[in-house]
Parts: sequence; structure tokens; C-alpha cells
Amino acid sequence: MYATIQEANNAVAARIKEARPYWVDVKPAGDVIDELNVGMTLLHAGPPITWARMTGPMQGAVLGAAKLEGWAKTDDEAAALAENGQIRFIPCHDVRAVGPMGGITSKSMPVIIMRNKVHGNESFCNLNEGIGKVMRFGAYDEEVLARHRWMMSTLGPVLSAALKTTEEGIDITSLIAQAITMGDEFHQRNIAASALLMRTITVPAMNSGMPAEQCKEVLDFLACTDQFFLNVMMAYCKCVMDAAAEIEEGSIVTAMTRNGRDFGIRISGLGKRWFTADVNTPVGLFFTGYTQDDANPDIGDSAITETFGVGGAAMVAAPGVTRFVGAGGFQDALRISNEMQEIYVDNNPLLLIPSWDFRGAPLGLDIRKVVETGITPLINTGIAHKLPGIGQVGAGTVRAPLDCFVAAFEALAQKLELND
Amino acid sequence: MYATIQEANNAVAARIKEARPYWVDVKPAGDVIDELNVGMTLLHAGPPITWARMTGPMQGAVLGAAKLEGWAKTDDEAAALAENGQIRFIPCHDVRAVGPMGGITSKSMPVIIMRNKVHGNESFCNLNEGIGKVMRFGAYDEEVLARHRWMMSTLGPVLSAALKTTEEGIDITSLIAQAITMGDEFHQRNIAASALLMRTITVPAMNSGMPAEQCKEVLDFLACTDQFFLNVMMAYCKCVMDAAAEIEEGSIVTAMTRNGRDFGIRISGLGKRWFTADVNTPVGLFFTGYTQDDANPDIGDSAITETFGVGGAAMVAAPGVTRFVGAGGFQDALRISNEMQEIYVDNNPLLLIPSWDFRGAPLGLDIRKVVETGITPLINTGIAHKLPGIGQVGAGTVRAPLDCFVAAFEALAQKLELND
Repeated sequence: MYATIQEANNAVAARIKEARPYWVDVKPAGDVIDELNVGMTLLHAGPPITWARMTGPMQGAVLGAAKLEGWAKTDDEAAALAENGQIRFIPCHDVRAVGPMGGITSKSMPVIIMRNKVHGNESFCNLNEGIGKVMRFGAYDEEVLARHRWMMSTLGPVLSAALKTTEEGIDITSLIAQAITMGDEFHQRNIAASALLMRTITVPAMNSGMPAEQCKEVLDFLACTDQFFLNVMMAYCKCVMDAAAEIEEGSIVTAMTRNGRDFGIRISGLGKRWFTADVNTPVGLFFTGYTQDDANPDIGDSAITETFGVGGAAMVAAPGVTRFVGAGGFQDALRISNEMQEIYVDNNPLLLIPSWDFRGAPLGLDIRKVVETGITPLINTGIAHKLPGIGQVGAGTVRAPLDCFVAAFEALAQKLELND
Repeated sequence: MYATIQEANNAVAARIKEARPYWVDVKPAGDVIDELNVGMTLLHAGPPITWARMTGPMQGAVLGAAKLEGWAKTDDEAAALAENGQIRFIPCHDVRAVGPMGGITSKSMPVIIMRNKVHGNESFCNLNEGIGKVMRFGAYDEEVLARHRWMMSTLGPVLSAALKTTEEGIDITSLIAQAITMGDEFHQRNIAASALLMRTITVPAMNSGMPAEQCKEVLDFLACTDQFFLNVMMAYCKCVMDAAAEIEEGSIVTAMTRNGRDFGIRISGLGKRWFTADVNTPVGLFFTGYTQDDANPDIGDSAITETFGVGGAAMVAAPGVTRFVGAGGFQDALRISNEMQEIYVDNNPLLLIPSWDFRGAPLGLDIRKVVETGITPLINTGIAHKLPGIGQVGAGTVRAPLDCFVAAFEALAQKLELND
């Protein structure tokens, strides 16, 4: 029991600074998340949602996952299972997991195992599928499923075997401390971290005893998947924020996530309770042939990066990304990070940003500051087509809605009054 | 014949922008530089110099190279060969080559083959030896020679075989356009380019048909050699500047280099004539146990990077390096690039620097501007111990001496008057 919210928040911030998640393994999701082995269960991004309320990209991914698991042979069969309530949906966040965009994760999909060597907790995230037609953005045809089968048969096993040849897995804190000096903000730009990760895992993969052809396929995939690290970073941030949440007091946001309808947050002083509000729709730049009208509302667990204090909060570290998300030039990136700093309580001493004159990335998003200033977190995000089956159509930025912070603030005030 | 210096300089700048050097192969230096096959010949950094005038690190490297080539069995034998004038010394620059620090290159050492696909010219640079005791910084014991033998037997052949599996080699322009957004200035910081290069060459190496164990050794070496790309970049810059020099008019610097005693420049309007002045000694940060008193005066062909317009000129792209070379924080990096811009005539449209609000790296160093403003190029550099046999002791910055620019300016004025 801390004397003040400030003291509790300091304890939360200290945990964020102390956590040291290592990437230790890759396993089928069902091996580490028991809930996935009960009937037909899928994880999804964001706070709880029913099939009927899901937006296009999440529904598309559900159809894909149902076919991938062999629960349905056709799209119609898969849709019927969902409509009839035969598929159970659980938020990733409820089982120590996160997933980008739709976040749909089934038991056979390989997941990253992140282990916090200081506090002992683990977290999980599925593997990045690369670009083009991908399930996280709602595509679900045979091409998408074929890639997932390869991830199950080859990508997951090779990465797992490679990690096992290392002494203690890969120290992700060291890697991101380097990569943040190389223009990554870890949400829409991960090329430096992806390249450093590949550099780190190449020889372990070759030492893994896995067939040379499979190793080569995996390294070829890593060599051209600039956003591969996003999912690693999401697992990392989840691992850090889950450790921070164990303080169980204070006003620091421990999760921000979106299911395409609702933006949900959790705060350190109120455990696993969700505070939600309607999501906004990202604005940004669109791939040729698509426009703002095609954009699905905000979706995905990837805002765990902004929860940790990177992504939009660390825009100044990645001025290269500002053009990609349509957010302007260097001065705009600087302005955004300076604005975001007003709602975070501290700076991360391990993530020094050279172009911010070596100031650390923001750390500890405080709902009190959000409510006081009216400044809401800015999130860098991919943009999915609103219809199922299409995929990514652009990238941009979106604001978290203020109402969920206000609701959490009121609930925290109520709890503290009750304690008096 | 151009009507004005300005027009000639525009033609030089256009060539710098048009050049497209690809890394196409690695071969023993003697296979591509005939001069190395005559008696005992070594290439060295900087303008011409005799053994007697060479500083410690260059002399140390000469002893190492003589032993490596089997010309001498002991250090004394090697020194005697050099003292008696039996070893012929040629500047790297005179044979389309460049070499970092001492720049000592012998016929058996593998060199990078860079080919400019637009103008057809080729250039060469030896391979980076990694860190620790290395010949370029003047170390020459058995450990150093063993590494060179491995580079000859394994590193060179694997890279060559890997490059041959690619359709047209590696497009270095694309790679650096990416890496300059990732915090590299390509002189004292090359980690992004080195990681991107490794990413590019891993699968080709695995496809090369070379023994798996050798491939693994090479990839392991690349994975931990953050400055590997420096030598690739030097060959690239030499290739671009040699193509630019073919204009044969104007006041643009086509080479800046140092032999430990003399700082030498060449300009586009005066061919291969050297204009020299005494070098300065770099100031910076020193490894534990060493101080400014240990620093050798400025040495190496690596200032070809500043000639091209990166390195110190692009300091703002790499604020991370400013701390490494003791040059301050982000504002200092910004100030340095802004100052350097005053002596360059243009900006490189392919090398956009996000933290400079997407302005291109400086391009076209004009001796007229140097003489008019008194601003001399700032060079980011490694610092060698002044005694042979020790190696790198730090990293810092150094200014080119004004006098060689003044001498070139006067010679150009004289040439133009004669033409009237």
C-alpha cells in the first residue's frame, strides 16, 4: 500500500525500468495458453467483443483461422461456426498475449515466448507474417493459409531451435536500446531492430541442427520482412507492462488496445478491468487505389507499444516514419514527442533518443495527466481495409479517445474514496 | 570545355548524383591492380610518402604486410627491406583504390570490387578486419596475420561466391539511402549499413556453394563487425568521385586523404595533382588507458567519405556518433552539418536525412568556398596509437588544413589565366 498515487506510480515506473524480457522460445500457442485447447477458441485483439460486433478484418481473420485449424472447410462453414456461437472468443490480453490488428490467434499458430528475467512473468505474441495478403489485416484465402502452414512447419521450429542454441535467449532490451538510435519507433518502423535481430539469430539458426534448406527459407524471410520485429516488440512491451501491473496501485496505463469498435485501457490501480470508448479511425497515407473511405476503424493490440512509451510517443526517434504515416517532417516528429511527454510521468533511461538530444523515450502514461491536459495518446498504426479479405491499405496515426481515460479516472477516484 | 567554373562544377555534381556503384566481387588485390605484381609493392593511404617519413601505424602495417606476403620472416627482416628501399610504395589513390588508416594493401589481400554501372569505372578497397588488434591501425603480430590469412582463405572467397549468385551485385546506393535514415554517417558509424548488408548477403552466401562451415564463419564475422561497411563505403565513394573527376574541370574536391604527415587533396580541374599541407591531429575520446598524447596525426584514405559528402558533413544524420567522437549532442551535430553545408555546392537527392528535415547530405566540396569562408572540412576518424604495433586507441574529429585548399585554389587560378 503506497501513501500516494505518485508513490504508486513511481513504483510502477521503477518496474518498467527494471524489467528485462528475453526472447527465449517459439511454441504453438496451445502449448503455452491452455484456454486455446478448449473446444474452438480464438484469441482476438482489444477488449472483449462478439462475432456480430467484429469489423471486417477481424471477421476475415476468424474465417482464416477456422480453416487453418481444420474446423471448417469453406468460408461459409467457418462463418456459420462463428455466427452460431460455436467459436469462443477471448481477448489476447486476458491470457498474457497480444496480437497485431485483428490479433486472431489459434492454438496451432507459433507464438513468441518472452520471459522477463527480473520479475519472472512471460508473455506471448504470434509471429509476423510479412507483407502483402496477411491474416492480421483480414485476408484469409489459400495464399494466406499456405504462409501460416509454412510458419507452423518451418518458421516457428527453426526460430525455436535457434533460440535454444543461445545461452539465455535474446536480450531484447539491449537490442532496442541500439535500434532506437537507428530510426525505429517500434510500431510502424522496425527495420533497424529487424536487421539487428536477423544479425543476432543467423548463426544460431545455422547451428540449430535444422535442415539447411529450412534455415535458408527462414533467413530469406527475415531478410525481407522489415516489420518482423513489431511482434517481438509487442510481446516485449506486454511482458514489461504485465510486470508493472503487479504493483496493483496508481494511475499508470498498463494496456491500450482496440478491437475495431472499442478502445480499451487498463490501469495499474484497477487490475484487469477494461475502460472503453468508441475507437477513432486512423488518418494517413494510402496504398495506390485506396482512400480514407476504405479505412477500418482503429484495431489491434499493437498500441501496447505506446503504452510502454514508444510508437507515436517516440516519433522523434523515427523521423523517417513521419512521412510513412503522413505526419510531416522532423519538426512535426519533435512536436509530437514533446506533446506526448506531457502525459507520461518519466523517461526511459535505457532508450536514449539521439535526435531528442539523448532524452529517453517517454515512460509511464498517466491517466491523470491525460484527463488534466486533454492530450490523448497518438498511435502510429497500420490501416486495414474495412471489408474482410483485402488486407492492409495504408498507414497513419490515430488518437486514443478521451472518454476511456475519464472513465478510468472516475473509477480510480471512487476506489480511493472507498479506501479512505 | 565549360564556360564557367560554376558550369563545370554543376557537371561534376551531376556525375556524383548519376553514379551507381554496385559491389560486384571480391578478388585478391593483385588480380585487379597490376602494379602490385611488380617486385615487392605495397599500397598506402594518402599522398606519396617514403618509408622514412611514415608514422608508426603505417610502418607497423608495412612490417605485417611484408610478413604476410612471405617477403620477410621477422620484423627486423621486414624493416630492413623497407629501409633499404626494396619495397616500392604507391598511394592507393593512384591505382583506383582506397584503404582506411595506414591503407597498406598487398597483392594477396582480398579487395572489394565496386563497379559504377552508369560510367563504367571500377574502384577497390581492402576488407574490414573487425576490431581489436588490426593492421590498419598499425598492429602486425601473429594474431593480426592469422586474421588476414582467414580473410584470404575464407572471407574473400565466400563473399565473392555470394556476390556471384546475385544478378548484378549489390546496389550500394539503395542500401545507403536506407541506412542514412538509420543513424549512419558512414565514417565512424556504419552499424545500420553493416546490418542491412549482412541481411542482403546471408542467403546469397548460403547459396554460394561454399562449405557451410566457412559460410557460418563469415556470417558470424559480419554479425559482430559494426564497421564492416566502412570499407564498402570507401570503395563506393572512390568509385563516385573517380567518375566525377573525369569532367576534368571545376573546383570540386575529388579526393581528400592523409598519410600521417601530409593531408592531400585533388580537385576536378587539376587531375591527379596533389595539393598537400601538414595534417592535424584528431581530438576525441580515448579507450581506457590511452590519452591524447598517444594519438597519431591524421591518417587514412577514409576521408573519401567526407569528399563524397557524408562522414563529418552528414553528422546530423548520425547524432549517435557525436558522443562516440566526443563532438557533443544533437544540436552540435546539427551545427556541424549546417557549417559544412557552407562549403559544399549542392545536396544529394538520394541521401535524405530525416533529422535534417529530409534535406540531402552535402554534395560537391568546393575549394572556392573553403578559401572564401575559411571553413575547413570536419572529418570523423578513428585514432591510431602513434607507435607501431598497438592499434586503435580512440575516435574523434579533425579538421583538414586550410593550406592545401589555398594551394589548389592558386593553381586553378593560374591554369585558368593560362587558358585565357
